[in-house]
Amino acid sequence: MKEYKVGIVGATGYGGVELIRLLANHPHFHVYAVYSSSQDGTELAEVYPHLSNAVYTLQDINPKNMAEELDLVFTATPSGVSSKLVPQLIEEGIKVVDLSGDFRLKTEALYEKWYKKPAAAEAFLQQSVYGLSEWFADEVESSTFVANPGCYPTATLLGLAPLVSKQMVKSNSIIIDAKSGISGAGRGLSQMAHYAEINENMKIYKVNQHQHIPEIESILEKWDEEIGHVTFSTHLVPMTRGIMSTIYAELSEESSVQELHQLYVDTYQNSPFVRVRKAGEFPSTKEVSASNYCDIGVAFDERTKRITIVSVIDNLVKGAAGQAIQNANIMMGFEQQAGIGLLPVFP
Amino acid sequence: MKEYKVGIVGATGYGGVELIRLLANHPHFHVYAVYSSSQDGTELAEVYPHLSNAVYTLQDINPKNMAEELDLVFTATPSGVSSKLVPQLIEEGIKVVDLSGDFRLKTEALYEKWYKKPAAAEAFLQQSVYGLSEWFADEVESSTFVANPGCYPTATLLGLAPLVSKQMVKSNSIIIDAKSGISGAGRGLSQMAHYAEINENMKIYKVNQHQHIPEIESILEKWDEEIGHVTFSTHLVPMTRGIMSTIYAELSEESSVQELHQLYVDTYQNSPFVRVRKAGEFPSTKEVSASNYCDIGVAFDERTKRITIVSVIDNLVKGAAGQAIQNANIMMGFEQQAGIGLLPVFP
Amino acid sequence: MKEYKVGIVGATGYGGVELIRLLANHPHFHVYAVYSSSQDGTELAEVYPHLSNAVYTLQDINPKNMAEELDLVFTATPSGVSSKLVPQLIEEGIKVVDLSGDFRLKTEALYEKWYKKPAAAEAFLQQSVYGLSEWFADEVESSTFVANPGCYPTATLLGLAPLVSKQMVKSNSIIIDAKSGISGAGRGLSQMAHYAEINENMKIYKVNQHQHIPEIESILEKWDEEIGHVTFSTHLVPMTRGIMSTIYAELSEESSVQELHQLYVDTYQNSPFVRVRKAGEFPSTKEVSASNYCDIGVAFDERTKRITIVSVIDNLVKGAAGQAIQNANIMMGFEQQAGIGLLPVFP
Amino acid sequence: MKEYKVGIVGATGYGGVELIRLLANHPHFHVYAVYSSSQDGTELAEVYPHLSNAVYTLQDINPKNMAEELDLVFTATPSGVSSKLVPQLIEEGIKVVDLSGDFRLKTEALYEKWYKKPAAAEAFLQQSVYGLSEWFADEVESSTFVANPGCYPTATLLGLAPLVSKQMVKSNSIIIDAKSGISGAGRGLSQMAHYAEINENMKIYKVNQHQHIPEIESILEKWDEEIGHVTFSTHLVPMTRGIMSTIYAELSEESSVQELHQLYVDTYQNSPFVRVRKAGEFPSTKEVSASNYCDIGVAFDERTKRITIVSVIDNLVKGAAGQAIQNANIMMGFEQQAGIGLLPVFP
Repeated sequence: MKEYKVGIVGATGYGGVELIRLLANHPHFHVYAVYSSSQDGTELAEVYPHLSNAVYTLQDINPKNMAEELDLVFTATPSGVSSKLVPQLIEEGIKVVDLSGDFRLKTEALYEKWYKKPAAAEAFLQQSVYGLSEWFADEVESSTFVANPGCYPTATLLGLAPLVSKQMVKSNSIIIDAKSGISGAGRGLSQMAHYAEINENMKIYKVNQHQHIPEIESILEKWDEEIGHVTFSTHLVPMTRGIMSTIYAELSEESSVQELHQLYVDTYQNSPFVRVRKAGEFPSTKEVSASNYCDIGVAFDERTKRITIVSVIDNLVKGAAGQAIQNANIMMGFEQQAGIGLLPVFP
Repeated sequence: MKEYKVGIVGATGYGGVELIRLLANHPHFHVYAVYSSSQDGTELAEVYPHLSNAVYTLQDINPKNMAEELDLVFTATPSGVSSKLVPQLIEEGIKVVDLSGDFRLKTEALYEKWYKKPAAAEAFLQQSVYGLSEWFADEVESSTFVANPGCYPTATLLGLAPLVSKQMVKSNSIIIDAKSGISGAGRGLSQMAHYAEINENMKIYKVNQHQHIPEIESILEKWDEEIGHVTFSTHLVPMTRGIMSTIYAELSEESSVQELHQLYVDTYQNSPFVRVRKAGEFPSTKEVSASNYCDIGVAFDERTKRITIVSVIDNLVKGAAGQAIQNANIMMGFEQQAGIGLLPVFP
Repeated sequence: MKEYKVGIVGATGYGGVELIRLLANHPHFHVYAVYSSSQDGTELAEVYPHLSNAVYTLQDINPKNMAEELDLVFTATPSGVSSKLVPQLIEEGIKVVDLSGDFRLKTEALYEKWYKKPAAAEAFLQQSVYGLSEWFADEVESSTFVANPGCYPTATLLGLAPLVSKQMVKSNSIIIDAKSGISGAGRGLSQMAHYAEINENMKIYKVNQHQHIPEIESILEKWDEEIGHVTFSTHLVPMTRGIMSTIYAELSEESSVQELHQLYVDTYQNSPFVRVRKAGEFPSTKEVSASNYCDIGVAFDERTKRITIVSVIDNLVKGAAGQAIQNANIMMGFEQQAGIGLLPVFP
Repeated sequence: MKEYKVGIVGATGYGGVELIRLLANHPHFHVYAVYSSSQDGTELAEVYPHLSNAVYTLQDINPKNMAEELDLVFTATPSGVSSKLVPQLIEEGIKVVDLSGDFRLKTEALYEKWYKKPAAAEAFLQQSVYGLSEWFADEVESSTFVANPGCYPTATLLGLAPLVSKQMVKSNSIIIDAKSGISGAGRGLSQMAHYAEINENMKIYKVNQHQHIPEIESILEKWDEEIGHVTFSTHLVPMTRGIMSTIYAELSEESSVQELHQLYVDTYQNSPFVRVRKAGEFPSTKEVSASNYCDIGVAFDERTKRITIVSVIDNLVKGAAGQAIQNANIMMGFEQQAGIGLLPVFP
């Protein structure tokens, strides 16, 4: 079987190292090289002893050489770095799946308002395809440049899509209360991620200011241009992995839990990574841990006429590295589960 | 200084044992006896080795004797037990602070609908005073029987009261996304509280069915009879203590974060246990851990015109034993901080 | 490629469910049926929602049918259950890997002294091969009945073997201070594994009485009959997975950290699952999490002339299901890494 | 009642902030001022929002002013800072309890060997009294300068003292396997204390090189000059607070668990903060959490003739701030429990 060579830029971050874990089990992709501008020459195993039997030396980034050697590049670089690097890779003709937030918003103005950083040129913003694999597989398949969705948007959009794509949700009625494990804050040191302070603690942050708000709204508007604004809150929960998005909304027309449940089951019947729970049951974050699944439950409250949708993912897998590989599989024409069909780790 | 004798019924539960911790530091109350119907004769230190220097033998419950010996009783018994026991104590003329949910709802019908158990006689339901200390201190002061609020309602009502008591919130617009540490599930063994399954996990439970819903709505209606129904969701977070109530609502008239913040500051200026954070800042649960504080932050989102209120407590202190002592202090005419003015344990 | 049918008895325990996770990724084994005497007829996904896309109905145990349908059985049953069940399976001629402690000790007397339960017939105790894969692969290869090692003994024996098998350790000088995550206590509910009580807690248990003591001593004596008794302590650490065995010992002859390190490197050079760290470096438990690796570091203290060996495993993988599959691979003549070569999950 | 004014230098570290928590409950001491060289002018509540109702502005350090205003100073400064600061305070005639390691070792050579930093002048090293309150209360009482013991030495020495002070332990036979919660690593950011990496992880560190080794050995030698070297290992456990010291040793003469237990009970009968558990029972770390207790259990293994001693403390209380206050109480002639008699927080 032909082996395809991939490179990982930003291999020392949590997204990068999760790509290495998953790709080690992939039937077609081979991690040919790993890159880091700040640590080139270092053995990856010195940074991450859990990889002490995987021999990788961090290399400096050189787009021209990468174009010659690689079939596809994953850029797991921070926002503000991808915006400069990825255009160079695209211009060299390499297939790219970018895990940063730099190409998910489609105008410079929107990006700069929320990210407070210079945007990439709008031509590149427009060129990238938003890789929410379950909903945009066709665009991904014909693309050479995928902007991999953010962790919160992945959980939230998969939870809302069945309803919003059918224009069933009342304008301006969506409230998203999102919770994430601490690995979402990345590998960089901060007081917020200091063990003694976040352990046994729950913290709300970036209230009304999270850069995932315009990402969520942009995609919802694709499905329903009347959908309006969402209220979106993010919380840190003392666990390493996992996102739960608890979503509240009002429906345009009354429904029942049975009808809603059936809609979700039908919508996702051909999506191997979305598991709709039985009517009246809800997923916990650990039930998808270390896997590429997104599990969803839905309820309708007869008293308030509101619906509650609960959507969980592993932020580093379906919310980052796993979905990136899913998109790469689709781009290359492989089965989308290739290498990422692992069951969750429980307990 | 005169010492007052108190008894604790249900001393082996987490609420009971937290009463013992706090009362050991109380200037006026002395824990004279501890009671447990199921384990009488046992040394408390055998159940709880952290109390190995506190000498208490669990006694059987006898209301007549208790009336002779005690000035006040805390009943930290489960729902369904208090409903039978407390009326006997009241009839013996003992002052009671009941930590269960059995006397918080004012009609038998409402109780039985949500608790799925037989209610206490309605006369007793009516006789009890709801002990949200910051808002009902006058009633508590003249009462001999206090129903101590639930943990979720305490955090939620203290967060909503400044607005709802002024009828500033739109009818049917309140959504409460509440999160709790696992100690809220009590000492009884269950798969849900089994370490290997809830550690590194976040779980939603009792969706639209939690018995704290009618408790919250009853009190909100006292302040604003037009307030309508609330959507209320509860989540388990992998930490032992702490509740965060993230509350979303719409205002009847537009406001600003400055105005809202000032309203909260003014409202709670004489409430030593409520700490309103600076405008734009929000509390984390650990910042009140092991203390009787309720910390509150508030935001107004210009985009969606919704407000977000964040209210945190320690579920076993302000959400149970601490507030119970605060109520007992008020009933006895002591300073309300007596014995419970301890600073939070951090980190 | 031929597919071999395996059955899992005790599929609802943590060992059983970990077998299902790992075997789902196996190239040759197919989980044909899962068994549970107490819950037959139940869907496994009802017990474990993280398996909600894996369709398994728990079946009642019938050795005769199993012999007809299966190539190999994993018995992940508790001690005291395997002793009765496994002999029936052996007599039907099925290959068995038993994950319980029931066949690891070779005499009835020794078993009954430490397990306080009736032993299996001594013929069966003698027939089983002790499946410490790295050291007894030859016996395993020619066997049809493997007693899979305990979690603590696996970490401890792999750490001690290079020295003890060369008779380099002083008699009676070994002290093993072992620490385990809570999943080692199993799925059964207990106060010891109740989240609110073991979270943020560290506990020593079964001091000088753990049933893994004779298992460790029996194997050490195979390598060095003069080795004598070991002091062995076990601690619960507030994490779900992971064992660290910190081992202290005195050497018969003086050595240096360089010599010792080289001995370990040489000893395990052909063992793909043992990773000896660089001289002076030590592994952490999370660096092997969810993987079949055993990572080892070794130090020599010039001041006290004692050596310190640190050996870590995931108790549910190399300490249970992973090593069981490794043994099954060896029994069937497969590559020993088949299906269990996954990298650790980090962070 | 007269109030005594104390100052806290290094109030932004975990030791400093724990002093503030405990002293807020003290009947005689009043925290008059808090100091920080790096952050003077800052409100302490900005650094620690859990103190948002405690009004303290961090002040710059000025020994002369401090001498005029204060009765006693706690220096909770890092090693290498105290060595320079404390001599200035002593020369101004202020009473000092120093929580750093800078004055615990009595020669410059020993300090510099283990701390790899310049020592304070030997005159000051000699002048300080080692404040293991239960054993050196007489010296503390007549002293104006106390070197507060380290966290590991406190747990370890209280565990060993009853035996070593009676010369009952064999020379060179002591092995100490110590485990600590992460708060022991302090407030400074490090990869080792980064939540995502140390959560669900157990790590050994500073093998044979910890600076608490000479501190432990120096005190043991005071009691028994033949005691020799100890083997001492330190592990990080994923919890915020707590130290467990598991100690192995051989006795000069055979004993029994009953005799040993009685010796411990007798030794500590007048020590209110040491709780010896019943024979055959062992403490867990959480059973002393947030309290000044040291709980101890002891076992004798008939098979190996070794004893096992388990000693637990809260590293920030008995291992730092609590014992510092205990020493200050003794220095001032107060009851030693003053302000620190709080029961443990459980669960």
